[in-house]
Amino acid sequence: MQFQLTDELIEQVKLLVEEQSDKELQKLLKEFHYADIAEILDELNLEEAIYVIKLLDSETTSDVLTELDEDNREKILKNLSDKEIAEEIEELDTDDAVDIISELPEERQQEVISKIEDEEHKAEITELLAYDEDSAGGLMAKELVKVYETWTVAGCLRRIRGQAKEVTRVHSIYVVDKQEKLIGRLSLKDLIVAKNDKKISDIYISNVDYVKVDEDVEDVAKIMAKYDLEAIPVVNEDQILLGRITIDDIVDVLKEEAEKDYQLAAGITGDVVADDSILELTRARLPWLVLGLVGGVGAFLIMEGFQESFKEKAILFFFTPLIAAMAGNVGVQSSAIIVQGLANDDVRGSVNSRLIKEMLLAALNGIILAIFLFLFVWFYKGELDKAIAISVSLVAVIIVAGLIGTFVPLFLNKQGVDPAIATGPFITTSNDILGILLYFWIAELIISLYS
Amino acid sequence: MQFQLTDELIEQVKLLVEEQSDKELQKLLKEFHYADIAEILDELNLEEAIYVIKLLDSETTSDVLTELDEDNREKILKNLSDKEIAEEIEELDTDDAVDIISELPEERQQEVISKIEDEEHKAEITELLAYDEDSAGGLMAKELVKVYETWTVAGCLRRIRGQAKEVTRVHSIYVVDKQEKLIGRLSLKDLIVAKNDKKISDIYISNVDYVKVDEDVEDVAKIMAKYDLEAIPVVNEDQILLGRITIDDIVDVLKEEAEKDYQLAAGITGDVVADDSILELTRARLPWLVLGLVGGVGAFLIMEGFQESFKEKAILFFFTPLIAAMAGNVGVQSSAIIVQGLANDDVRGSVNSRLIKEMLLAALNGIILAIFLFLFVWFYKGELDKAIAISVSLVAVIIVAGLIGTFVPLFLNKQGVDPAIATGPFITTSNDILGILLYFWIAELIISLYS
Repeated sequence: MQFQLTDELIEQVKLLVEEQSDKELQKLLKEFHYADIAEILDELNLEEAIYVIKLLDSETTSDVLTELDEDNREKILKNLSDKEIAEEIEELDTDDAVDIISELPEERQQEVISKIEDEEHKAEITELLAYDEDSAGGLMAKELVKVYETWTVAGCLRRIRGQAKEVTRVHSIYVVDKQEKLIGRLSLKDLIVAKNDKKISDIYISNVDYVKVDEDVEDVAKIMAKYDLEAIPVVNEDQILLGRITIDDIVDVLKEEAEKDYQLAAGITGDVVADDSILELTRARLPWLVLGLVGGVGAFLIMEGFQESFKEKAILFFFTPLIAAMAGNVGVQSSAIIVQGLANDDVRGSVNSRLIKEMLLAALNGIILAIFLFLFVWFYKGELDKAIAISVSLVAVIIVAGLIGTFVPLFLNKQGVDPAIATGPFITTSNDILGILLYFWIAELIISLYS
Repeated sequence: MQFQLTDELIEQVKLLVEEQSDKELQKLLKEFHYADIAEILDELNLEEAIYVIKLLDSETTSDVLTELDEDNREKILKNLSDKEIAEEIEELDTDDAVDIISELPEERQQEVISKIEDEEHKAEITELLAYDEDSAGGLMAKELVKVYETWTVAGCLRRIRGQAKEVTRVHSIYVVDKQEKLIGRLSLKDLIVAKNDKKISDIYISNVDYVKVDEDVEDVAKIMAKYDLEAIPVVNEDQILLGRITIDDIVDVLKEEAEKDYQLAAGITGDVVADDSILELTRARLPWLVLGLVGGVGAFLIMEGFQESFKEKAILFFFTPLIAAMAGNVGVQSSAIIVQGLANDDVRGSVNSRLIKEMLLAALNGIILAIFLFLFVWFYKGELDKAIAISVSLVAVIIVAGLIGTFVPLFLNKQGVDPAIATGPFITTSNDILGILLYFWIAELIISLYS
């Protein structure tokens, strides 16, 4: 059953577009899921993609639009009229509709919305557009199945048949009171198992999870993942039911978060993919490299400063890449564990106890590594003073790097800054410089004791 | 509504345990979700945790067990008898039951299973235990709602009421033929909207997504995320319906994958968390640091080898940390983008075209950075030959680092090795050494042209 995007398939579609074999093209694409069609379109050029888009029936087109690469969607939407976009929007659930409209330039958004014919849909989309896209409101859909506590099971089933037609998937049925306040939930299963003359107030489950409309999406994701929820209702501060968020959107949020953190750790900003242009990739990568360059120049200046002190001891300079690498690696390791712990809310206890633990850990690792290094320098060069100087400073550098790697993300998190920024080039570069400086200081001190 | 694990709450629970105030403790914990109770237990010591576990009713206990930290669960299970574990297992869905049993030592698994009273549950668990835990079979549950195509809607609803009681959530109703082969699906909604005397064969949807039982879980996750599925049926090679996988398990798979990749990129192996012991953390971190140490010693040997050539040009040595940092950063950036692209299946086209693109990108970044470095060295030191030597080799080093960062993950992936291993310390260390070597070669060449 699995769809495989092959070069042959893409060639076939390109050929059919060129030949304008509309019937055959429709027949071919009819077999694919809209997410697969989107993958095919992402491989076509703009003209071909628009040709195919206009050939598909309106329901498929709207679904395909939601699955396209953002860049491609933007280009395609530019080539559709306000009216055409409005027609696609009519087919979509409110959350997907808002995702697409919010990508349009501001001046076009109102034009497109004004051309939506269904007044209720129009009002709902306008409401959703007002929420911050990183809040529960920005993620929720207005489509849901809602019943009043005063209804009977039979009346409920009858009316749900009406409501459910508009809702792609019925996860939970939300129970509200006369004021539209969320008071509980029911599953379809509970409803079909219950006797027809029972009242909803007798059978609903009052223990219902919900989120506030201004809740951060990452927190919504945490709640849904923790409690294994497939949908969660969204309420305002008066507990009025406003919408619901489904797990498929949360899966997307989790994936995006993970990719963003991974890229930050690797020194890439701005959500790029391998297929982006060289210019876009440069914009994402160059700033971090400039940071590395500044760090490297800093290291140069430090080494130059110590040139006189170690005139006859050039060997010490040859260990700076080792010192820098170890400081960088330890810093990234300790910051990554803290960043991950913060993301999972399982960094508990005081900052001091964290720092003490990391100090012990770094000391243990540092001493093991220093023993290797000491033996190497001593046997290879036979110079005890240098062997001691280099290995002692390695331990010190590793401990300091571990402490910085632990402290910086905890500090950033307390300041309300995303601690993930502290992993990668930022921590590497500062640890490089500090590590080298520390190394020369300690080495200078120890060697002076021997002479 | 949000649960906040506070130190006060933990203290309160600890106090109630100490006082053996069973009733109050039960009353307090009754208000919390089992996932929250698990969080509380993770903060108690073993004795306290077991005291609480034995106090909870059996259904809550079993759910709490599934949510505990793996380490804590292991310790608690050690302190429960085979019979007690078997009783908890009886309460769980087959997939959760198998997760817990598979963590027990092999010799205990059979003991526990033999004490499960429900023969069907026992047989299903034994079946599931046989599948690889990274395959669809290892993730699926046997609980599902299944109907035969020959049934009527009314008969169906009647029988579903029976089946559904055992299934926590009804996502889809799977339609099978007489041979138990999966032929389609239905939603509860479709069923309640349909007329009672219709036959299932008239109303079912034959277009059903499914996965084979030996499919890799990461691929299952990709399919479910792509097609926005909340459950997917699992079949064997004869299309016989074996079980179903639900999205909550996939959310866990996605989170684990992301954490593993993030840790690999940071030079940590073995799925550790901030609260693990110093020894566990050392085991996860030290191997990568040893690799860094070996790399650093390699860099030392290279620099020592060039000592004679650059006797009067010590300044060149002072740029090695800069060269190493840039080589490392560029390598990690390019490998991270490829690793992420491979994970998302959107690295298309030939290896050559990837390498050419990365070469252009690295050249662009490299030239921009080299101009800065050239100006710095020239103005600061006034030595044109060295300024040229350093900046030209920087461009070369960046290009080579980018190519290695692109090639290695593509190569590993082709060999069937997880390309994520190529990010982090591995690529950093090899690029460090190679970068420094290349730097000295090119610098030597250019300076020899000037003298």
